[in-house]
Amino acid sequence: MKRSYPLSKVYSLLESGPVVLVSTALKGRSNIMTMSWHTMIDFNPPLVGCVISDRNYTFDILKKTGECAINIPTLDIAGEAVACGNVSGMKTDKFAKFGLTPVKASEVKAPLIKECYASLECELADGRMAGKYNLFIFKVLKAWVDTSVKGPKTLHHRGGKDFMVAGKTIKLGSKMA
Amino acid sequence: MKRSYPLSKVYSLLESGPVVLVSTALKGRSNIMTMSWHTMIDFNPPLVGCVISDRNYTFDILKKTGECAINIPTLDIAGEAVACGNVSGMKTDKFAKFGLTPVKASEVKAPLIKECYASLECELADGRMAGKYNLFIFKVLKAWVDTSVKGPKTLHHRGGKDFMVAGKTIKLGSKMA
Repeated sequence: MKRSYPLSKVYSLLESGPVVLVSTALKGRSNIMTMSWHTMIDFNPPLVGCVISDRNYTFDILKKTGECAINIPTLDIAGEAVACGNVSGMKTDKFAKFGLTPVKASEVKAPLIKECYASLECELADGRMAGKYNLFIFKVLKAWVDTSVKGPKTLHHRGGKDFMVAGKTIKLGSKMA
Repeated sequence: MKRSYPLSKVYSLLESGPVVLVSTALKGRSNIMTMSWHTMIDFNPPLVGCVISDRNYTFDILKKTGECAINIPTLDIAGEAVACGNVSGMKTDKFAKFGLTPVKASEVKAPLIKECYASLECELADGRMAGKYNLFIFKVLKAWVDTSVKGPKTLHHRGGKDFMVAGKTIKLGSKMA
């Protein structure tokens, strides 16, 4: 059960570098893209930089709609998450093909992915670097997190077929941001 | 023992989102900053986007020198890595204070950090987004990796004092990039 999550804490979801699923919708048709090239850019409102290649169908959808959701999967749907990165949404309905469930968002037309423990509703804040660097800067409008998931087993790409699964969480003496 | 590492594989070091140590030098004086806000932007030559707040001393050094090294620490120096993020290099020689060893780089004046399992020598490729977003785009000129370290226990910030330590690596059916 996902609950609304404070925007000022969104950084703690993305800063560790998880593989994410970017969901979009264009003319009533939904799509999913798997992505690891993202970084927080500011805390509040949360800005997230995402590198999305212009060879991806999602690039075109973003240029047209300026909206997406960033969903964070865990180990239990690792196969589906990676599979989403290996077919194009041009030909395939990835929700149907991989058994993922679209959930209506509150602020954007892009659907959230039910099976992910966290979902961020985003609107494009700055697309000027999309041409040169495929870099989109999104503002997070609304965040949803299943806070019953402690130490989520997020996936972290290490190249090729290798994915690191999140290990234990430790406390270190001092804060860092 | 770090060896030269192919630039085309640099993405596999950073894509998983580790905490990194950014080392710099200005007028013969070295500094270290702890950072988690980075993303790969291109494969080869490797471009890395780094968000470095203008409240950090490193911001000024980068504006003046256009050079740094991105060093990747592991669990064995977790305390030192986080401590580097909690004092300013304006007043402190962090190499001396935290017992880290500077190593001469081959392409840049910034020193590498011996105790990190990987180090990337970087030059500023695009500083135009530094004003609005504190975003620097670096080109990796040379990479060094201790390839005897398998499944490096990298650190991944989860907010506040919480750090996730890299867990096991799994293979997933298909490639993702």
